[in-house]
Amino acid sequence: MSSSDIFTGEVIGTAVLILLGAGVCAAVTLKRSKAQNAGWLAITFGWGFAVLTGAYISAGVSGAHLNPAVTLGLAIQGGTEWSDVPLYLASQLLGAMIGAALVWVAYYGQFRAHLSDPEIISTPGPEGMVDERLEPQAGPVLGIFSTGPEIRNAVQNLLTEIIATVVLVLAILTQGLNDEGKGLGVLGVLITALVVVGIGLSLGGPTGYAINPVRDLGPRIVHALVPMANKGGSDWGYAWIPVVGPLIGGALAGGLYELAFA
Amino acid sequence: MSSSDIFTGEVIGTAVLILLGAGVCAAVTLKRSKAQNAGWLAITFGWGFAVLTGAYISAGVSGAHLNPAVTLGLAIQGGTEWSDVPLYLASQLLGAMIGAALVWVAYYGQFRAHLSDPEIISTPGPEGMVDERLEPQAGPVLGIFSTGPEIRNAVQNLLTEIIATVVLVLAILTQGLNDEGKGLGVLGVLITALVVVGIGLSLGGPTGYAINPVRDLGPRIVHALVPMANKGGSDWGYAWIPVVGPLIGGALAGGLYELAFA
Amino acid sequence: MSSSDIFTGEVIGTAVLILLGAGVCAAVTLKRSKAQNAGWLAITFGWGFAVLTGAYISAGVSGAHLNPAVTLGLAIQGGTEWSDVPLYLASQLLGAMIGAALVWVAYYGQFRAHLSDPEIISTPGPEGMVDERLEPQAGPVLGIFSTGPEIRNAVQNLLTEIIATVVLVLAILTQGLNDEGKGLGVLGVLITALVVVGIGLSLGGPTGYAINPVRDLGPRIVHALVPMANKGGSDWGYAWIPVVGPLIGGALAGGLYELAFA
Amino acid sequence: MSSSDIFTGEVIGTAVLILLGAGVCAAVTLKRSKAQNAGWLAITFGWGFAVLTGAYISAGVSGAHLNPAVTLGLAIQGGTEWSDVPLYLASQLLGAMIGAALVWVAYYGQFRAHLSDPEIISTPGPEGMVDERLEPQAGPVLGIFSTGPEIRNAVQNLLTEIIATVVLVLAILTQGLNDEGKGLGVLGVLITALVVVGIGLSLGGPTGYAINPVRDLGPRIVHALVPMANKGGSDWGYAWIPVVGPLIGGALAGGLYELAFA
Repeated sequence: MSSSDIFTGEVIGTAVLILLGAGVCAAVTLKRSKAQNAGWLAITFGWGFAVLTGAYISAGVSGAHLNPAVTLGLAIQGGTEWSDVPLYLASQLLGAMIGAALVWVAYYGQFRAHLSDPEIISTPGPEGMVDERLEPQAGPVLGIFSTGPEIRNAVQNLLTEIIATVVLVLAILTQGLNDEGKGLGVLGVLITALVVVGIGLSLGGPTGYAINPVRDLGPRIVHALVPMANKGGSDWGYAWIPVVGPLIGGALAGGLYELAFA
Repeated sequence: MSSSDIFTGEVIGTAVLILLGAGVCAAVTLKRSKAQNAGWLAITFGWGFAVLTGAYISAGVSGAHLNPAVTLGLAIQGGTEWSDVPLYLASQLLGAMIGAALVWVAYYGQFRAHLSDPEIISTPGPEGMVDERLEPQAGPVLGIFSTGPEIRNAVQNLLTEIIATVVLVLAILTQGLNDEGKGLGVLGVLITALVVVGIGLSLGGPTGYAINPVRDLGPRIVHALVPMANKGGSDWGYAWIPVVGPLIGGALAGGLYELAFA
Repeated sequence: MSSSDIFTGEVIGTAVLILLGAGVCAAVTLKRSKAQNAGWLAITFGWGFAVLTGAYISAGVSGAHLNPAVTLGLAIQGGTEWSDVPLYLASQLLGAMIGAALVWVAYYGQFRAHLSDPEIISTPGPEGMVDERLEPQAGPVLGIFSTGPEIRNAVQNLLTEIIATVVLVLAILTQGLNDEGKGLGVLGVLITALVVVGIGLSLGGPTGYAINPVRDLGPRIVHALVPMANKGGSDWGYAWIPVVGPLIGGALAGGLYELAFA
Repeated sequence: MSSSDIFTGEVIGTAVLILLGAGVCAAVTLKRSKAQNAGWLAITFGWGFAVLTGAYISAGVSGAHLNPAVTLGLAIQGGTEWSDVPLYLASQLLGAMIGAALVWVAYYGQFRAHLSDPEIISTPGPEGMVDERLEPQAGPVLGIFSTGPEIRNAVQNLLTEIIATVVLVLAILTQGLNDEGKGLGVLGVLITALVVVGIGLSLGGPTGYAINPVRDLGPRIVHALVPMANKGGSDWGYAWIPVVGPLIGGALAGGLYELAFA
C-alpha cells in the first residue's frame, strides 16, 4: 500500500466516519433538527453506519483502519507495517478534524438556533454529563463533538474504554480467520459496522464509547477552534482518557490475538 | 445496456423507491395509519429499505441508479456513458411520479381522513416546517411528498444537501474498488441501502435529506396535481434546492473520486 | 424438488414464519409480556426476521416460498411448476396454522392474563381496528393472529394489499437477475427479509400488510378454534381481502416481470 | 478441531457474547447510563449483535457454538463429535462467567449508583419480575445477569424456552443446506445474529429468552459471587428452567433435523 493511498483513504474515510458519527449526535441533540430526541438507538445505529460508510469508501484504498487503536492492533498482529503507523495516525486525526468541521457546516443553522436559546445556555452541562465537577468547563454542545462520562472516575472510565476497544479490535483482527486472509472484504465492513452498533448498545452507557482516539480528539480540537457563541468549554481534563484507553485496548487485543489465535 | 433496459429498470426501480420512501412518510404522518408517530428511526430505515428494494429490483436491468446525482457522478467517473444520461434522468423522474401516485392510492383513505380533520387543516405547516416564511404556502401533507427545511436559508440548505449527497455518491463510486469492478452486486445494494439509513440519521436533521433530485421533484409535481381537498401549497419556492444541491454533490463526488481514487 | 421436500420445507418454514410473526404481535400486544408496547419498529423488524428465519430454514429444502402469492408469481414466471402449486399452497396453510398454534402455547400465560383483565375485555376492538363497523365482531386479541384495516373499505384495502404484494413478489422474482440464476441464496433470503421490513414500514399503515394469504387465513382459523375465554369474534367478513389481494398482487408481479424483465 | 482451539474459541467467544449481551441489559437498566430506558428494541438488537460479535470472533477457531443447546443439536446431527461435547460445555460456562464479570467491571460505577438509590432498593423485584412469589429472593439488578419470567409457571416457562430454542438451533443446523456444507461462514454468522434478534422480538416476552443454558447460569453464578451491597437474591428456584428448557429445545431441533431434512 503506497503512502499516498494510506493518506487519501484514511483522511477521506475518517472524515466520513466523523461527519456521520458526530452528525447523528448533532441530529439528535440540536433544536430545529428533524431528528431531535430520536433516542439512543438512533445514535448507535448512526455511529455504526458511519463506520460502514467510511470503511466502505476507504477499504479498497487504505484498508479502512480509521482508528489508531485498530492500526496499533494490526501492527502488533503483523497485518500493518510499523513504519506506516505514523502516517495512518496523522491521516486519521486530520480526517477526524475535517469531518467534525463538516458537521458544523451541515448543522450551522441548528447550532446557532440551539446556542441562542436562553434555556439551553443556562443548563450547566450537556445531557449525560451530570457530574458536578464537569459543569464549569463542558459546554452545551460538546457532547456532539466528543465523549464524556456519566460518572467521572478516571480508573472506571479507562477500564470501560479499554474493554470496549478490545472487543472492537479483536473482531477486526479475527476477520482473516473467517475470510481466508483476503483482507477486509465488503462483508467484513458490514460485520464491523454492526459490531460497532453492538458495542454502542452494550458498552456505551458509562462513557459514550469513544473506542477510537481520533474520534474523540479530532472533534474536540474542532470544538475548541470553531467560533460559536456560548459553546462552552472543551473539557480538556477528560480528553486523555478516550485517547489512552482505546490505545491500551487496541494493544491488548493485538496481544490477545497473538496469544490465543495466531 | 440497451435503452429499453435503462428505461424499464429506472422507471420501475425509482417507482418502487418512491412508493416505499414516500410511503413511510405517509405511514408515520397520517391519521388512521397503524404507524402514525412511529418516529425518526422508522423514517430512516423505511427510506433505506426503499432504496434496497428499488435497487435490488433494477440492479440487474439498468444498474439501479434511481437518482440523477448518481447518474451524474457515474458519468463523470466514466462508469456511465454521457449519451445515456438524458434517458436515465427522464426515466427516473417518470418513475418517481408513478411511485408518488401509488402512495396516494395506497393511503387514499388515510389522506382523506387526515385532511378532513379540522385540527390538522388549521395547522400552519407540516411537522418540521416551522419557519414562518413557509406557512402560507406549504400544506399539511406536503412533507409526505417532498422535503422541506427546518430553518429556511438557501445557502445553508444547499450546503447540507451537497455534503450529504457527496457521501452517498462517493460510497457508490467506490464500490468498484471493493467488489473487483464487477458492477453493482447484491452486497453493494445492501451496503448502499444502509449508507442511506446512515445519511438520514446523521445528516437528515436540517433539510430532510433529499440527496436525489427526482425524489423531491417527482412527488412534488404529483402533490401539485392530485385532487385532494385542503392539501395546501406545494412550496415551489424551495423546490430548486433539493434539485440543485444533490446535482452539485453528485458532480463533486465524481470529481473527488477522479482526483483521489482513480 | 420432490413432493416430500416441498411439503417438509413449506410446512416447517411457514410454521416458523408465523410463530415469529404472530409472536411479535403477541409480544407487543399482551399484558405481562416484557415487550408490551415496544412499538411499530419492533413489529416490522419482528416480521422481517420471521421471514428471514423461516426462509433460511427452508431455502435449501423447498425454495422457501412460504406464501401463495410468491408461489403464484413464480409459477407465472416459470420458476415453479404449475403442478406443484397445490402442494405448496396446502403445505403453507398447514404450516401457518401450526405456527399460530405455537404462538398460543408460547404466550399461553400472557393470553390468559390479558383476556382476564376487565378493562381489556370491555374495549370494543383490538388496537388499530377503530372502525365502528368492526366492533361487534373483532376480539381483543384477533390482531395478534390476523390483519385488520384501520379504515374498512374493500376497494381501498384490496388496492393497498395488491400494491404491497406486487413489490414483494417483484423483488423475489428479480433475484435471478442479480444472483446469476442460482436460485434463492443466503443473501437473497437476507434481502427479502429486509424488503419485508421495508414494506411493513412503508405500506403497512392502512391494513397491517398481510401480503400473504396464509399469513392471514391460517392464524384466523386457529383463532376461531382455540379455546380462549373472551377472545371475541374472528372477523370473517374481512377475511377474503388479505387472501384475494395478495393473490392478485402476486399474479400482477408475475405478469409485470414477464412483460418488463424477461 | 483441536481441544485447544475449542477451549480458546469458546471461552473468548462466549465471554464476548455475555459481555455485550448482559452489557446491553446493564446499559438499559442502570441509573447514570446514557442508554437507560432505551427500550426493548435496544435489548433485542444488543443481544443479536452480541451473538454476531462473539460468533464472528470465534467462528474460525471453534466453530462458534457458544451455547450448549447448539452443541447438543450439532452432536445429534453429527456435525460435532460427542467426545468434544464436555469441553465445549465447560468452556462456554467459563466464558459466560468471564463475560458477566467484565460487565460488572465496565458498569461498576453505574452498579454502585443504582444500588445506592433508596428508591430502587425498596422496589420488590427487578423490572419484568412482577410475580409476588419472586419478590423475597430476586434482587434489583438480577435481570442484568439472568432471565426471569413475567408469569412464574414451570410448565409454561419451559415450553416457551423449548419453542424458542428449537427455532434457533434449527436455523443453525440448516445452514449447511444453504451454504453447501462449508461450515459456518461469515454470512451464516450474520443471519444467526439476526435470527436471535427475531427470536427476542417475537418469543422473548414471557421469559426473557435464555435459549442458552450458560447465558443464564454463568451470569447467575457471577451475580451470586460479586460483592455488591443490596444486590438481592439470585433466584436459584428458577435457575433450572433456562438450563433444561434450551437443552430440550436443542435436542428436539437435532431430532427434527434428522427426521425432516437429513
